[in-house]
Amino acid sequence: MFVYADNAATTKVRPAALKAFEETAQKYFGNPSSLHSAGQRAKEELTRCREKVAAVLGARPEEIYFTSGGSESDNQAILSAAYFGAKKGKKKIISTAIEHHAVLHTLKKLQKEGFEVVLLPVGERGIVKVEDAEKEMDENTCLVSVMLANNEIGTLQPVSEIGKLCREKKIPFHTDAVQAVGHMPVNVNDLNCDYLALSGHKFGAPRGVGALYVRRGAPLLNLIEGGAQERGKRAGTENLPAIAAMTVALEEATRDLPAYMKKVSALRDELIENLSKIPHCALNGDPEKRLCGNVSFCFEGIEGESLLLLLDEEGICASSGSACTSGSLDPSHVLLAIGRVHDVAHGSLRLTLSEDTTEEEIAYMSEKIPQVVAYLRGMSPVWRDLQEGKRTYIL
Amino acid sequence: MFVYADNAATTKVRPAALKAFEETAQKYFGNPSSLHSAGQRAKEELTRCREKVAAVLGARPEEIYFTSGGSESDNQAILSAAYFGAKKGKKKIISTAIEHHAVLHTLKKLQKEGFEVVLLPVGERGIVKVEDAEKEMDENTCLVSVMLANNEIGTLQPVSEIGKLCREKKIPFHTDAVQAVGHMPVNVNDLNCDYLALSGHKFGAPRGVGALYVRRGAPLLNLIEGGAQERGKRAGTENLPAIAAMTVALEEATRDLPAYMKKVSALRDELIENLSKIPHCALNGDPEKRLCGNVSFCFEGIEGESLLLLLDEEGICASSGSACTSGSLDPSHVLLAIGRVHDVAHGSLRLTLSEDTTEEEIAYMSEKIPQVVAYLRGMSPVWRDLQEGKRTYIL
Repeated sequence: MFVYADNAATTKVRPAALKAFEETAQKYFGNPSSLHSAGQRAKEELTRCREKVAAVLGARPEEIYFTSGGSESDNQAILSAAYFGAKKGKKKIISTAIEHHAVLHTLKKLQKEGFEVVLLPVGERGIVKVEDAEKEMDENTCLVSVMLANNEIGTLQPVSEIGKLCREKKIPFHTDAVQAVGHMPVNVNDLNCDYLALSGHKFGAPRGVGALYVRRGAPLLNLIEGGAQERGKRAGTENLPAIAAMTVALEEATRDLPAYMKKVSALRDELIENLSKIPHCALNGDPEKRLCGNVSFCFEGIEGESLLLLLDEEGICASSGSACTSGSLDPSHVLLAIGRVHDVAHGSLRLTLSEDTTEEEIAYMSEKIPQVVAYLRGMSPVWRDLQEGKRTYIL
Repeated sequence: MFVYADNAATTKVRPAALKAFEETAQKYFGNPSSLHSAGQRAKEELTRCREKVAAVLGARPEEIYFTSGGSESDNQAILSAAYFGAKKGKKKIISTAIEHHAVLHTLKKLQKEGFEVVLLPVGERGIVKVEDAEKEMDENTCLVSVMLANNEIGTLQPVSEIGKLCREKKIPFHTDAVQAVGHMPVNVNDLNCDYLALSGHKFGAPRGVGALYVRRGAPLLNLIEGGAQERGKRAGTENLPAIAAMTVALEEATRDLPAYMKKVSALRDELIENLSKIPHCALNGDPEKRLCGNVSFCFEGIEGESLLLLLDEEGICASSGSACTSGSLDPSHVLLAIGRVHDVAHGSLRLTLSEDTTEEEIAYMSEKIPQVVAYLRGMSPVWRDLQEGKRTYIL
């Protein structure tokens, strides 16, 4: 059996999105900036896509900027708010300890440039407290950035409430919604955000395309200088085939969102229940406030990397945390932030489901994962020490 | 008849490239950063693509960074060399007056930050003089950036010679080769460049993908922060289907380059010869040192925009200059740089051919364009003034 349970890393392209890519590449082959009819037809299609994406998010079309993906969107939003704030002498940025690296590394860069960066704690459940965010907000704050759903442990953050406070205090508010869009309702007005980043390939669009929502009036600087595309804010010939594919994927993913969420969260809960029976393990994140497709565990006494490789031999594609940091020997900053010690954080497993996940796949993973964990523990000196009482169980 | 003669704006996607996109999206759907076999297979395919692209350019695979396109590549190269130079107190940048906006606008940003930017003149033929570049090179110079082929008038620059001087003087050298790659031999060693930017959709790949060549040892800063993709220098999930499509397009475009160049330059010369018969017109750029597919004219007494719209009605897709600046009322900075006065620069026409251009299309354009020019002149008050001697002909 082959089970793809790494949908948070990247999804398979939806057939309708791939078809839209191909058709758009052929039908609207002109450059949307060209004056001739082939160009103007492409421009009209671009406008239609922008309107559709805006409609899904509750935004105005002119508030949507197409980018190359989530990382670019995050970078542009954060730098825009930061540099705009700095001009007014505001150089404090509030974020959380569990943001994606596209946010954290951008903040690190800003920190080197003299910005004060406060990373809020998220507690054992991996959820930031609204009051912690509020306490840090002051007249020097130029930006608050809190992700909507975490990519590793799937926790949902109180973005709407934090956004409301930011609006009251007139502080620009950015949310990285890369993992959320297509998997839960995302409305920029409900979220009270000024910037929202999304990435197509997390909901069945091809890679290399994303969007940045920027509320009317919020500052926006160019990350990429050049031509006047995207109202002068993002240079480079518009990637129309990919934009059209993303539009189709977004509409398809959000069309039956309640049914999708109900089905996938039931599968998720079943898998969580089954894996919870493994001795000395713990679910990462919050059991309820989590993405419908996210299952994340730590298993004591084993290495996540070995677990992944053996699961792969059984046909199960999983990950230990974020795909972006694989190859790194450091344990996940997210797992450390929720209080997992190094040894335990190294024994992590993330399974992320999709609309294609079946009952049979859940049953298969529920059978295989305990076997592989037991097998690895059988060879693990750490596990032997735990069993013999030379070490103390943490989980 | 329908004639697409705006290939410098964007090319139609090659069927083999579109096929590669689709097949790669399906076959290598994993995230190349994932440890499971679906991810590792994707990673291997990414490595194969990098090796192939490097081989075409005469580079080492580890010197190729995949990006979202030419603009991003230009931005990253220029900012990297500039900020690296600034750390050593070097803040002078030498470029030319006819660079693409992805270069010029990045330089303008740097100028605002305190860099000294010298834009070399290019003379009537649109070609920069090596000795002019050499004169400006000094110990404060942190970067020289000269495009390989101009996007509007098609002129080829003495990049190899300027690069040689830069190497002798240990000055980082960047070339924007966006219009050149796939249309003429491009070898990073022959060009003596440290950075080279290319864009897939200019040679039959889909949009949204490009590459930056960075010579081993040349400084490289991140434009997009986040995950550790592209050896930590370009965050964001690798756009593998588009990269594979670009690789196929690049190999196809360069396979029979001499035959392609011979065929297309013959068509170009025929079209230039035919259009030169129109009274009071002038070829823009150099008749010999130009891209094989570029035809660029100025016609006295007419507006380029009207010309484009009427040609469009005849089924001819053309442009007045760069697609990136359409909609702007300013005349092209390139045409002004080669000495065209405002009125004349407004009457410009660019026709850019491809491997699909036929003899019939050349004949059709050679027939229609003089008719449309004559028709527009018949309605033009400026032309009447010229005819009646109230104005003096410039061309």
